[in-house]
Amino acid sequence: MVVIMKERATEAQVQAVIAHLMDMGYDVHRSSGANQAVLGAVGDGQADTGLIEVQDGVDRVHRISVPYKLASRTFKPENTVITIDDVRIGGDEVIVMAGPCSAETEEQVEATAAAVKRAGAKILRGGAFKPRSSPYSFQGLGEVGLRMLRSAADRHGLKLITEVMEASQIEVISQYAHIFQVGARNMQNYSLLRELGKTRLPVMIKRGLSATVEEWLLSAEYVLAGGNMQVMLCERGIRTFESYMRNTFDISAIPVVQQLSHLPVIADPSHATGRRDKVAPMARAAVAAGADGLIIEVHCDPDRAKSDGAQSMFPAQFERLMAELRIIAPAIGRSMCVEPVARRGWNR
Amino acid sequence: MVVIMKERATEAQVQAVIAHLMDMGYDVHRSSGANQAVLGAVGDGQADTGLIEVQDGVDRVHRISVPYKLASRTFKPENTVITIDDVRIGGDEVIVMAGPCSAETEEQVEATAAAVKRAGAKILRGGAFKPRSSPYSFQGLGEVGLRMLRSAADRHGLKLITEVMEASQIEVISQYAHIFQVGARNMQNYSLLRELGKTRLPVMIKRGLSATVEEWLLSAEYVLAGGNMQVMLCERGIRTFESYMRNTFDISAIPVVQQLSHLPVIADPSHATGRRDKVAPMARAAVAAGADGLIIEVHCDPDRAKSDGAQSMFPAQFERLMAELRIIAPAIGRSMCVEPVARRGWNR
Amino acid sequence: MVVIMKERATEAQVQAVIAHLMDMGYDVHRSSGANQAVLGAVGDGQADTGLIEVQDGVDRVHRISVPYKLASRTFKPENTVITIDDVRIGGDEVIVMAGPCSAETEEQVEATAAAVKRAGAKILRGGAFKPRSSPYSFQGLGEVGLRMLRSAADRHGLKLITEVMEASQIEVISQYAHIFQVGARNMQNYSLLRELGKTRLPVMIKRGLSATVEEWLLSAEYVLAGGNMQVMLCERGIRTFESYMRNTFDISAIPVVQQLSHLPVIADPSHATGRRDKVAPMARAAVAAGADGLIIEVHCDPDRAKSDGAQSMFPAQFERLMAELRIIAPAIGRSMCVEPVARRGWNR
Amino acid sequence: MVVIMKERATEAQVQAVIAHLMDMGYDVHRSSGANQAVLGAVGDGQADTGLIEVQDGVDRVHRISVPYKLASRTFKPENTVITIDDVRIGGDEVIVMAGPCSAETEEQVEATAAAVKRAGAKILRGGAFKPRSSPYSFQGLGEVGLRMLRSAADRHGLKLITEVMEASQIEVISQYAHIFQVGARNMQNYSLLRELGKTRLPVMIKRGLSATVEEWLLSAEYVLAGGNMQVMLCERGIRTFESYMRNTFDISAIPVVQQLSHLPVIADPSHATGRRDKVAPMARAAVAAGADGLIIEVHCDPDRAKSDGAQSMFPAQFERLMAELRIIAPAIGRSMCVEPVARRGWNR
Repeated sequence: MVVIMKERATEAQVQAVIAHLMDMGYDVHRSSGANQAVLGAVGDGQADTGLIEVQDGVDRVHRISVPYKLASRTFKPENTVITIDDVRIGGDEVIVMAGPCSAETEEQVEATAAAVKRAGAKILRGGAFKPRSSPYSFQGLGEVGLRMLRSAADRHGLKLITEVMEASQIEVISQYAHIFQVGARNMQNYSLLRELGKTRLPVMIKRGLSATVEEWLLSAEYVLAGGNMQVMLCERGIRTFESYMRNTFDISAIPVVQQLSHLPVIADPSHATGRRDKVAPMARAAVAAGADGLIIEVHCDPDRAKSDGAQSMFPAQFERLMAELRIIAPAIGRSMCVEPVARRGWNR
Repeated sequence: MVVIMKERATEAQVQAVIAHLMDMGYDVHRSSGANQAVLGAVGDGQADTGLIEVQDGVDRVHRISVPYKLASRTFKPENTVITIDDVRIGGDEVIVMAGPCSAETEEQVEATAAAVKRAGAKILRGGAFKPRSSPYSFQGLGEVGLRMLRSAADRHGLKLITEVMEASQIEVISQYAHIFQVGARNMQNYSLLRELGKTRLPVMIKRGLSATVEEWLLSAEYVLAGGNMQVMLCERGIRTFESYMRNTFDISAIPVVQQLSHLPVIADPSHATGRRDKVAPMARAAVAAGADGLIIEVHCDPDRAKSDGAQSMFPAQFERLMAELRIIAPAIGRSMCVEPVARRGWNR
Repeated sequence: MVVIMKERATEAQVQAVIAHLMDMGYDVHRSSGANQAVLGAVGDGQADTGLIEVQDGVDRVHRISVPYKLASRTFKPENTVITIDDVRIGGDEVIVMAGPCSAETEEQVEATAAAVKRAGAKILRGGAFKPRSSPYSFQGLGEVGLRMLRSAADRHGLKLITEVMEASQIEVISQYAHIFQVGARNMQNYSLLRELGKTRLPVMIKRGLSATVEEWLLSAEYVLAGGNMQVMLCERGIRTFESYMRNTFDISAIPVVQQLSHLPVIADPSHATGRRDKVAPMARAAVAAGADGLIIEVHCDPDRAKSDGAQSMFPAQFERLMAELRIIAPAIGRSMCVEPVARRGWNR
Repeated sequence: MVVIMKERATEAQVQAVIAHLMDMGYDVHRSSGANQAVLGAVGDGQADTGLIEVQDGVDRVHRISVPYKLASRTFKPENTVITIDDVRIGGDEVIVMAGPCSAETEEQVEATAAAVKRAGAKILRGGAFKPRSSPYSFQGLGEVGLRMLRSAADRHGLKLITEVMEASQIEVISQYAHIFQVGARNMQNYSLLRELGKTRLPVMIKRGLSATVEEWLLSAEYVLAGGNMQVMLCERGIRTFESYMRNTFDISAIPVVQQLSHLPVIADPSHATGRRDKVAPMARAAVAAGADGLIIEVHCDPDRAKSDGAQSMFPAQFERLMAELRIIAPAIGRSMCVEPVARRGWNR
């Protein structure tokens, strides 16, 4: 760490800080010549920079190294590509995950899965265990919902991603889903992250509403440190003073994370905006900014959805969006999913 | 809900929204005379206001009632007082909880418990299961730590509050602690909240870093809805653009929550500031604003603490603070804990 | 306005609020049947909703109409297109403004103007009066800088936009520039906005760091109310807890403002990010989201720029970006500036 | 500045950064032994740290010294006390400024001035030139209002503080007021600050809605650098995601600024909360946190105020608050204004 002393720090204060650092196992280099002393502390110690910052005569303290390791480009310079059969997340192709907020009925799941497949999605999204801010809201169908989702995914050649809310659900979900989704509110549920580190299914970690990029990468580190290297991240909007949209979609986080980490970055314009009429522009923006994939809520009848209807796209809106994305992706050297089913449909 | 149509909304759009609302089970009142139509929807339906907001011709939608019920003053106008033997939280006395971030050793726990008791604290705080943002940081002593904490608390006539991170810890913690603490990162861990609703020990719910007051009260509602009415709330700083302090202590949330809810409100100046030299002014401010209690990190040797040393007060700092608080409390008609041990000490 | 009374409000409190509203000149409609009284207040009065909100028994108050008028789509449904000779801002073409942060020397201005023209920019940006957060920083060349900028603009067939910091500069700037830029820190400098309302040059108003969309439109309203209808808005990042980038680029504000207002919306990825390596992805995202134009800092030698060097692009970076944008624009039915000079250059 | 290179930075990249720093006039010290190179750059150069941060191989850059000088405790360790006749701001006594948002009528100004004097205020606040977010709102009485305010202040032995919105108002205001107030929206109106630096009246600078502490001190630096050393700062709430109150009162900024700077810090609970029923708890909290003074809106008939009625206290509320503050101030070794007029009143 680098310790910047106050200009008026006494020599005794400087010496006390040096002694404290050496006590913590650091080698200390002192620079001279400026208006104030600057101490460089080098070593293996897990630095609590705050503890040094409150010592007498200290102005500020900065860390030298980042606290995450396995998630960093320093550890692994090349991109991580997560492969599920023929679907490759983090490669050249921009992967789209789409589907309803929650599984509600067989018919709803089937109709929506068919629609998103037709438009070019590769992965079906859908919830069976729902984290709801009110205890009085619809809480999901549980395993019944998982079965509906997986069977529709299989019928349409889609993979399945679904949310896991607690460690006790891992076993049942792993029987149905191809990817675990960790919701924004659970981004720092370390008990859950640790258990997911022991599984071998890919995990997508949504960014918490007020999580810094570093905290987000540390949450990924929990899973990676457990030995599960198939982790992807998902930007879904942060909370700011601006309340016109539900959240502020932090699109700049996409290139930032891609620079710091080798993990794929997915964007979720549905939760970021909360309104279906704003999903398309934000989805286009995310792809133009370089996102490795999108996760989008689509519902066959969104005005009657049991949850998140306002932000769920109509199938026709989604299809139009996919056509726009196919124009944008090449601008950044990416491809977008081809859509064989749709084309067959048009040929008939 | 109240639906405000756009000025240029067509009559067909207004009629479509009215039909949609009636379909959802609402009675609809239409007001005339303004530049735009305003619809009042009255009924029992669980309104998804967002869904109406995305309909054509709609400008904005406002809810009429708040989504929490048991936590509200409407449900229970008089203050909730939580009683643990002779300690009453939410009554006239401002209650102080103090102690180390984590239990580390028998000696550290004993020395710290003795010090906070001497200064006038009524409840010992201390962690055994620690949520840490890095998987490489000290994670707590587990049950061994709980035993140390409870035994020190008993020796000094203190009650014990400690953090629960997941449902599986509830049983063991309930054997040692008098109050469960739900950390800020778990404020929306609904699985955990639901399980705590089934216990009969008091629960203190810390406000999430970016939680609105309403979301915070909804988390309390999860516990209350389970039948556990002994809930208190804890303001511990929110995340804003200001980074000089670790968080921004939202002291105004104290009177706001006390107006909306009957539940006691505790303030945590240690986590709000992250620096021991700023804890005292913020503790004084919280009491002056009307907090029902404080929770403060104190350590017998904070410069060697295994966690949160920077924000842990020295015992002497804490004692001075308690003396200042005794002057402030009467300004708002509250008392502060008398300190029999300390007085005995002075008499010797 | 709509007044929602508390559930426990007494009839006397309801009557007092009704009387207060009528006193303010409103017609009041009271709805019945819900758990609480809801009052609709209709009329011409300039409502101070806050004043009603603090009355006894009142829970919340919502406005019916927005406080801006001339800036709204209700007042003018069709897009405003600002025309400066052959440059049309707000039409089909996405317009790019580019150039240095500050005019420094004749050579620097000339080299940069030539580069941005070659890449396809239509408008030269450049500062002569600089608002700097430190009184000790370079404050700009003043009129000398304006002359350099205009003469380079003329040589290359570009229009000129430059910042105005105070009313006393309006006269001199209007002799050189085609567009006045109001900086983010002056967004609520009402004295300045009022004076700009009296001019007849186009005005671009940057969004303040923490301005809501409504406050931003109210600032436009100040200029429009003065009779100057040639106003455009510029999103340049907002301040949030996220500090990895200088600001958080609120790209979703682009479609939001375009829905509420008829005024063109420009995006400034340079100030939004503060780092030249993040400008390109954010510029692409802004165009994909539907921005009517971009304003980008480009410098012929950015590592030696007197201000904002970190966020100024090298000419070659800018040229590559423009090529990418030409692929993206058609995805949303827009065109990008053709680049006759550059093509001629390549033919030679 | 301290430059932290990436772990994978090449030697050539390190050398290029060293060369760049030396080119900027710095002496460079390179530390070895860590996983990455750390460069200490020492010298007089005005560092643009951002420019170094975007160089290849650079991870992060930190400044060593703060950008403000005259405002810092390093420059002047002892507190600045601003003296206006017998009123001392920044001394032992907590000074209260109170009065209406705007001067409206002779009667209103007189009644309010009498009330705040009676309760113990030392300075009358009141606006004549009003910055309003809407061009259609009441904009103040101008010089007529100034005259009313000064004459009431004189009658009651109060000093006068009023807002200045632009340089052209300085002359007229200086004929009436004892203190210039710079509003939050003008905190970075550098043209205005520079002009105020040339005057010799005290200046109170309100913190901008999203200003960091450093930016706020830099605004003070503009005035100080002009030679006017009578500057005080005013915390009035910042903008965050929390919208229950108008702003989030950042009370912790009070001790933070007092540690960094020698300038007095005033707190404005009226604008921070926007609701008169929350002003008292926040005023108490500010004094408990160590504020050197308060500025509070009081109106003889707030429900009929032309501006800010919702946050204006009734005289009786203000009087009760002052009594509470007299209990709190001694807890931190401060005194509160005695109230001779009121006492005389009671004796009659």
